[in-house]
Amino acid sequence: MPSYTPPRSSQPPTGVPFELSLSTHPSTPHHRSSLTPVSFLLRAALITPRKLAIDHPERGYGFTYEQWATRCLSLAFAILSVPGFKAGDRVAVISPNAPLIADAHWGIPAVGGIITPINIRNTPKEVAYVLEHSGSTIILCDHEFTHLLPEANGKVKVVVSKDSGGQDKNDEYEHFLDQGWQAWQRAQQAELDKFKSRTKPSAEPKTGWKLLNAPLDEEAAIALCYTSGTTGRPKGVLTNHRGAYLSAISNAFEANITADSRYLWVLPMFHACGWTFPWAVTAALGTHHTIRKVDNTVIWDALRNHGVTHYCGAPTVQIGLVNHPDAKKLDHKVNVAVAASAPTANLLAKMEGLNLHPVHVYGLTETYGPFTRRYFEPEWAKLDVDARARMMARQGHAYLTSDEVRVVRTDSSTTSTEDLIDVERNGKETGEIVIRGNMTMLGYYNDPSATSKAVMKGWFHTGDLAVRHPGGEIQILDRGKDIIISGGENISSLMVEQELAAHGDVLECCVIARAHEKWGERGHAFVVLTEQSKGKKGKEFIEELRKHCKGRMSGFAVPEWFEIVEELPKTSTGKVQKNVLRARFASKL
Amino acid sequence: MPSYTPPRSSQPPTGVPFELSLSTHPSTPHHRSSLTPVSFLLRAALITPRKLAIDHPERGYGFTYEQWATRCLSLAFAILSVPGFKAGDRVAVISPNAPLIADAHWGIPAVGGIITPINIRNTPKEVAYVLEHSGSTIILCDHEFTHLLPEANGKVKVVVSKDSGGQDKNDEYEHFLDQGWQAWQRAQQAELDKFKSRTKPSAEPKTGWKLLNAPLDEEAAIALCYTSGTTGRPKGVLTNHRGAYLSAISNAFEANITADSRYLWVLPMFHACGWTFPWAVTAALGTHHTIRKVDNTVIWDALRNHGVTHYCGAPTVQIGLVNHPDAKKLDHKVNVAVAASAPTANLLAKMEGLNLHPVHVYGLTETYGPFTRRYFEPEWAKLDVDARARMMARQGHAYLTSDEVRVVRTDSSTTSTEDLIDVERNGKETGEIVIRGNMTMLGYYNDPSATSKAVMKGWFHTGDLAVRHPGGEIQILDRGKDIIISGGENISSLMVEQELAAHGDVLECCVIARAHEKWGERGHAFVVLTEQSKGKKGKEFIEELRKHCKGRMSGFAVPEWFEIVEELPKTSTGKVQKNVLRARFASKL
Repeated sequence: MPSYTPPRSSQPPTGVPFELSLSTHPSTPHHRSSLTPVSFLLRAALITPRKLAIDHPERGYGFTYEQWATRCLSLAFAILSVPGFKAGDRVAVISPNAPLIADAHWGIPAVGGIITPINIRNTPKEVAYVLEHSGSTIILCDHEFTHLLPEANGKVKVVVSKDSGGQDKNDEYEHFLDQGWQAWQRAQQAELDKFKSRTKPSAEPKTGWKLLNAPLDEEAAIALCYTSGTTGRPKGVLTNHRGAYLSAISNAFEANITADSRYLWVLPMFHACGWTFPWAVTAALGTHHTIRKVDNTVIWDALRNHGVTHYCGAPTVQIGLVNHPDAKKLDHKVNVAVAASAPTANLLAKMEGLNLHPVHVYGLTETYGPFTRRYFEPEWAKLDVDARARMMARQGHAYLTSDEVRVVRTDSSTTSTEDLIDVERNGKETGEIVIRGNMTMLGYYNDPSATSKAVMKGWFHTGDLAVRHPGGEIQILDRGKDIIISGGENISSLMVEQELAAHGDVLECCVIARAHEKWGERGHAFVVLTEQSKGKKGKEFIEELRKHCKGRMSGFAVPEWFEIVEELPKTSTGKVQKNVLRARFASKL
Repeated sequence: MPSYTPPRSSQPPTGVPFELSLSTHPSTPHHRSSLTPVSFLLRAALITPRKLAIDHPERGYGFTYEQWATRCLSLAFAILSVPGFKAGDRVAVISPNAPLIADAHWGIPAVGGIITPINIRNTPKEVAYVLEHSGSTIILCDHEFTHLLPEANGKVKVVVSKDSGGQDKNDEYEHFLDQGWQAWQRAQQAELDKFKSRTKPSAEPKTGWKLLNAPLDEEAAIALCYTSGTTGRPKGVLTNHRGAYLSAISNAFEANITADSRYLWVLPMFHACGWTFPWAVTAALGTHHTIRKVDNTVIWDALRNHGVTHYCGAPTVQIGLVNHPDAKKLDHKVNVAVAASAPTANLLAKMEGLNLHPVHVYGLTETYGPFTRRYFEPEWAKLDVDARARMMARQGHAYLTSDEVRVVRTDSSTTSTEDLIDVERNGKETGEIVIRGNMTMLGYYNDPSATSKAVMKGWFHTGDLAVRHPGGEIQILDRGKDIIISGGENISSLMVEQELAAHGDVLECCVIARAHEKWGERGHAFVVLTEQSKGKKGKEFIEELRKHCKGRMSGFAVPEWFEIVEELPKTSTGKVQKNVLRARFASKL
């Protein structure tokens, strides 16, 4: 960015001290501060002001930490200046991975607002529902996504960003920031004036971030993230400052992010607040690298030429990446947090060959993103890639700041009178994953019925079915509704997929339950082939896939049907839509 | 430890499930857990049960994480079983760096006890004062330090450890643990019996660590550490679970401790609970390596042959280490947290040449140990070692979980009516370092007068004088009483020492104020020479030292007197006793 000069709203003040701490409420005892991730940005700006905080090469702009701390303070004051705004109000953000949504992670919670990120892959109708349900009073919207905005009604303040960083003089978001900057200057001047007349200083005027207060209650809400929900209405997951602070520290720690790290924004920030990584990377004094689209050419350029060291993404993202023509082995290690499902042996081998090193994590929007990690065990070094992928596929153990994860009998949530009953740790008995503690959401916003269904006996119920191994680590079998029940046996569709995907010709696959006259249900496999294997088909090839499965699972678990397809239907967050595939057979029952 | 088998008190149970979480009080909401470092051990034992948690090669024993978690639970129950014991009681520990004191960091807080570590270099009289003042009702004492025990009075339960790990059948501590183990078994059996008669399970019997409760209040006290106090009575610094949890995470994060790390216990654990490293290393799933004495031969053996990756220590410790005959460049990097003062250029160059990489940290017992770190700046790579040492000598910025550090006008604490007044950030104006927040002690135990002198206007006053640089980092000038006032000028004795120590012949030095007819005070330097330079003396050599100083500081700051000495008097925690040196001249005024 040789020629880029940030607008005044993003330039650290001169002449007046730029304080980089929030004010503490006088009632807070000296040995306590409210845990809030907002503190991470201020600390980074103080320690390493001239380091690149966020780089947005696509649009030729970015900010150092002191510039970013200034910009976010301007945003905070801009929000405060919107008539009627008060702490606890929801501020929606409709944005791809650009500085706009990154700014929002600081500017909104800094004034007690609740950041409400919108999934930009949703339909206008879905977005309208979320905006309505959340009662958002301010919307920050990227210029390419204005079609998602509801009709103006005069009640909601809408600010559109051209993602110009002020290079475009008609960028509404930049005007909004500038108004915020002016409000900040006025507030600061009033403070300075108040102190000017005194002959003997008995206190100091507040400047910069000192003009804002740390949350008095660290359990005040910080974010409202809506789940994509394959069935039914999306639910709003409410999380708090304390949980975000602790989750962000865990993510920085578990991913080993340091001041030398550069984090590539492949994972959408609108997805569970980017799993708290906007806060985590900053806590570690690292650099954010934003890209508006998941474009494999752009990603490979970032990995190869911009020194990216970390990114997060689902296996579907990795598959596209490792099979891209630009995929060549990197000369530095990249740490990749993979969630949603584990990398298959094929994918794992390919990733490692490219110097992309996956860490398998598991989580939900309700848990601030990942809260378990599959910790490496030294013995894995001796295993072949197939066996290693199978070990890595387990969801593992709780994060540093998470409580221990339990797997409980599915009937105990409703029938037992006292507590939940754990399944045996034998890798066999199936139960539901439950969790509690600092990395668990407050509840579903304005939905006590959904909350009480999900939080029972003091534990949040994930809806994921799993076993627990003797080592205490959990392994997901399936979402409850995805399990295949065949001749009285429970078949984990995930297990079948994991094993089928180990076949060299298989790029990805999905197995669903299909009605079967004799067995009740039987598996139906949809298979996408690798680039090199495209064209393979016929009875013989299907038999080869069947034989591959037979060698790896009980006979009843081997899919009855195999179908080669071009691609799998996916949700806006990249999850395979099993419900769409199931619908194909629903009428044939 | 090929032949070592731990006693039953330290062997994980078989047959009955070994739960590795504390129970949560039913009133705790699902989205919150009390922050307590005790959780780190339980998590480590669950994730990596067979990893070596603590290795004590000197006595031929050590424990894996599941063994250690078992042992510490036995200790917890042993403490619970002492008649009259209740949560909030103080349990004293008199021990060098052996498993005894490491166990204490888990077993005592697990039952709400307050760990009260005793400085083993103190006199029996001093120890008696601390035991009396703390009101400790239980004392765990290593067999080599029984001379520090007060006379038996029947009120205090004393348990002596032979540091045998159970290899000696007459080890009282091991018997104590075994009694605890039995109490645990009884408690567990009672639970199991309660549930046995039921036909339908409606809850689960509590086993293992589930028999104990997480603290309901995370701000409950966890430790009481007495300051060594060069003047006056030692003061008892009371800290809490929340602060210890957050400090430990910061220490693990800032030192980059990982599951591959092996931490050598050079720093005494009785010193501010080992700066929270007993908890930090465990949080990171690393291995502890204990040594009973700071013996440089043993340390070099550990560094070279046991894969040590981290240790902490004051510069005085480093000086002995780098000048030891065994000192040879290591083939792996070792991360060294250096506190109390910064490494001099000489020392820094020597350490780096040996592959020991210092990180300069600063803290006090009142701040759980280190709470600031001098963060590396990329530009330092271009500097020579002298300039680099000078940059590194600053105390730097707040840790990840600490609040911003302030330097305030010394008069503002008492005279200003409202708030403390910050000094200018110009590297010149002197003030006092103050801090608040989660890494600040609760207060001095049973000493409201000392607490109210130290905690004023909501901020803990460290008593350290410092400047603040334009980059926001702090730099200590001196303890208030160590400053030299000469002809109206304030001279930082620390600064003079730092510069004098950059001379190639100087191993370490100390500069104190001495009365001077004309200037009021002038510096007197005590100099210890390096091994190679031993024997240098005479007028000419003194002139050389004087000239060296003249080139590096204002004329008035150059010491008037230089004195070559064999060694410097030090406190039990390794700090130079300036008061002892000053006393030599007190009568000559």
